[in-house]
Parts: sequence; C-alpha cells; structure tokens
Amino acid sequence: MNNKGKIYVVGIGPGNMEHMSLMALKAIEKSQVVIGYKTYINLIKDLLKDKEVIDSSMKKEIERCNLTIDEAEKGRIVSIVSSGDPGIYGMAGIILELINKRKSEIDVEIVPGISAANAAAASLGSPLMHDFAVISLSNLLTDWEIIKKRIECAAAGDFIISLYNPKSKRRVNQIAESRDIILKYRKPSTPVGIVKNAKRTGEKVIITDLENMLNYEIDMFTIIIVGNSNTYIENGKMITPRGYNI
Amino acid sequence: MNNKGKIYVVGIGPGNMEHMSLMALKAIEKSQVVIGYKTYINLIKDLLKDKEVIDSSMKKEIERCNLTIDEAEKGRIVSIVSSGDPGIYGMAGIILELINKRKSEIDVEIVPGISAANAAAASLGSPLMHDFAVISLSNLLTDWEIIKKRIECAAAGDFIISLYNPKSKRRVNQIAESRDIILKYRKPSTPVGIVKNAKRTGEKVIITDLENMLNYEIDMFTIIIVGNSNTYIENGKMITPRGYNI
Repeated sequence: MNNKGKIYVVGIGPGNMEHMSLMALKAIEKSQVVIGYKTYINLIKDLLKDKEVIDSSMKKEIERCNLTIDEAEKGRIVSIVSSGDPGIYGMAGIILELINKRKSEIDVEIVPGISAANAAAASLGSPLMHDFAVISLSNLLTDWEIIKKRIECAAAGDFIISLYNPKSKRRVNQIAESRDIILKYRKPSTPVGIVKNAKRTGEKVIITDLENMLNYEIDMFTIIIVGNSNTYIENGKMITPRGYNI
Repeated sequence: MNNKGKIYVVGIGPGNMEHMSLMALKAIEKSQVVIGYKTYINLIKDLLKDKEVIDSSMKKEIERCNLTIDEAEKGRIVSIVSSGDPGIYGMAGIILELINKRKSEIDVEIVPGISAANAAAASLGSPLMHDFAVISLSNLLTDWEIIKKRIECAAAGDFIISLYNPKSKRRVNQIAESRDIILKYRKPSTPVGIVKNAKRTGEKVIITDLENMLNYEIDMFTIIIVGNSNTYIENGKMITPRGYNI
C-alpha cells in the first residue's frame, strides 16, 4: 500500500465539465477519494464511478478540509473540488492553513480552474479587457466597511469591477449600496453585465447599466461585471476597449 | 460546402496543454484554420496536424484578427488562440470590435481559459483568496498616469495586486515606481510572489517581499502578486487568509 497520501485542490471551472482543464480531470482520475459540496459533486458525477465520494453541505468548509487531510494522512490520494478556481474565494487557502496548523507534511497541489468572472465575461463579450478588480460582497467573513472601502477605491481607479456573491436571501442591501458608491464615480449609463450560472446549464445573461441593474434578478449564483468609463455595448455585447486603434 | 463560418476565440490557458479546458480542445479540433502568435501555436502544435495553421508575429494583433474574420467569412471554422484567457488582455476584445466595425455577421464564441494570475497563484500557494486587482504595467496602450492611479487605488483599498507585463526590455522603470507607490500603503515585509512561465515548462517561482522584490529577474513572462495587509508566508507558501477561524 502506498502510504504517502496526496491532496489535489481541484478547480472544476464554472460548472459544466467542458470548461474543466485536462489537469483537473487527471487529478480526479488519479484520486481514490473525492470530497466536495454536493452541488459540485453533482456537476462531475460522471467522473466519480468507482471512487469513494464524500459530499458535504455548505458552510462546513473547515470540516470538509480537515476530512480531506485526514484521508490523505491515511495514505490515500484525495481530490477536494471547488467550482471555478480553488485559489479565488475557494478551498486552496483553508487547506494550506490547516496543513500548517496541523503540521502535516502531506503534499498539496493546487489545480487552477476557470473562475466565475472569466466565464461570465466570455458570455458577456469582452468586458475584462482592461484592469479590473474582483470583490466579494459577502460580509460573513469580512467587515462591510472594508468591502465598501474597496468598492470606493475600485470605482475611483476606474477599474472594471467584478462582484462575487452579490446577494443572498438574508443579505439584500449590499448590492444597492455598492451601486450607490460606484455611481459617485461613473455615469448611470455605465454598462453592467449580470450573469447567472455562467457557462453552466441554465445560464442567464443580461446586459444593462448602473441605472437599471437593480431591476433584474440577482442571487448567489450571479456574477456582476460593472464596466469602466470606456466600456460600451454594441450588438448585444459588452466591450471594454484596450486602446488599440481599430 | 458549409458557407457559414464561425470564430472561436480560444484561451489555451497558461501554456502547457494540461491546463487547457476540454472546450478549448474541442474548439480547436472543430476548426479548419488555427491562427495565433507563434509562441502559442508552438505550445499546442500536437493538436494542429491536418489543420491550416497561420502563425504571426507579436504586435500584429489587429492584422491577425482581421485575417481571422476574413477566413471565417469564406465559410470556414477558425480558432484564434491566446495564452491564458482571451478575455483578459487577450484577443476577445479586438475580434468583437473588428466584427462591429466591419459589420460582419460571423458568429463568435469566446472560450475562456485559465489566466496567468490564477496559474501563478496556484504555484505560489493561495495568495488570491481575498479581493484582488489585476493591473497591466504596459503603457503601450494606456497612459502611465492612469496606471499609476490604479496602483495607488488598489494599494489604498488593501487589494491583493496582480501585475501583468511588469517589465520589458525597453520598459524597466514601471515596476520600481509601482513598488514605491505600494510602499506608501504597505509594509516592506509584505509578501510578494514572482512567477515566471507560470504552469509552463521552465516555471520559476520566487516568494519574497516588497523590500527585496527588485533583486529578482522580472520580465514579460513574469506575473507578480503583491499580498494584502494580511498575507503571510509559511512553509514556502504565500497565503492570504479569508477570515475563517482556523
């Protein structure tokens, strides 16, 4: 028996398997155990025949990561899967922090994935062609004051702004407050893309503007991209020019 | 003959084929013509047998994109390939802008990829676990004053900062000026990751800090990630905590 375990922290991309990388596929194939939140496990269930699968519910990230390390310490090869990129608001950080806390010597490999903002951008056109900021509006782990300051700085710097976790059932005001901050720096006609389930079954793409964005459905499966001062809409696509003389 | 052409704007990921998505692979397989800068064409040459391949040299982005549209207008299926994600400083924007300018009705599909910052982050540990800004230091297409303002805003907002195109043969001072701006807001001991050829053959990963970062080799194939005020280094990994109680 191989008693040297290994952990792959695998980004499966936005959802549907076709946006997963070959390396992610290979990591899952090599694994004896696959661990993840059940929504993500379901997205890749075709890959999981003959594997031990441990699905777990939301908000149990630390438990899930500890379990991953436990399994690897038994000498097994374990994949813990995140949607998108595990390095962006995903499992990579928690795994590395716990490995250090537990003084574990398990080898960890982070397998990057296509993150939600990249997927949403591809469906909107080319909104992220210039400098951009990525901000999560979830204040579960971060003070709302810090988040607001970041929105202010991103707006002042004329960054394109990608908002993750814009709204949940209990958290409904942040997106309106964020919009108000951005409106201090940008015109109401600034293009805004709203993408639900980016590059996943049930994708819904809306292109609107700062003035009207709150009239559309926004939830935890939605990514919002606010254009910079040069972003425009043409033929149903959101385009940020980079400055080429076209 | 199928006279309805199509364009795939394909992100091949950071370089080595294993980080390409299944969708990118499929798009290239479906294509009759594949167009790209020769460095990227070389990275995927195993996929290009039996295809017409048009490689072109750097700085001819607009010519290359016009050629892509010309080929598609002949009724062919054409992939234009970018490294990383074509929607981030890549070909997606130019293609869409030219399609509009030429009033072409060719169908364009953007195939997202793993971008360089995500790849570099995976090799460094988990530096991008909190809000971050992506800034290109190339002032070929953007005024240096605008770039400096963005660095200032990103630093003031305590964003993790990913710098693309940090230095070229002719452009050597921007990275030092950028560092000076960031040092107004962050300690000299703030962790900095320098990754050359992220997730590509010849990868070189350095973890240092703001004080010492300029002592290392930095060029156009390098991505730099500057931590936020909470980022730390442990066991050779750069980690930004998200706020979990670990």
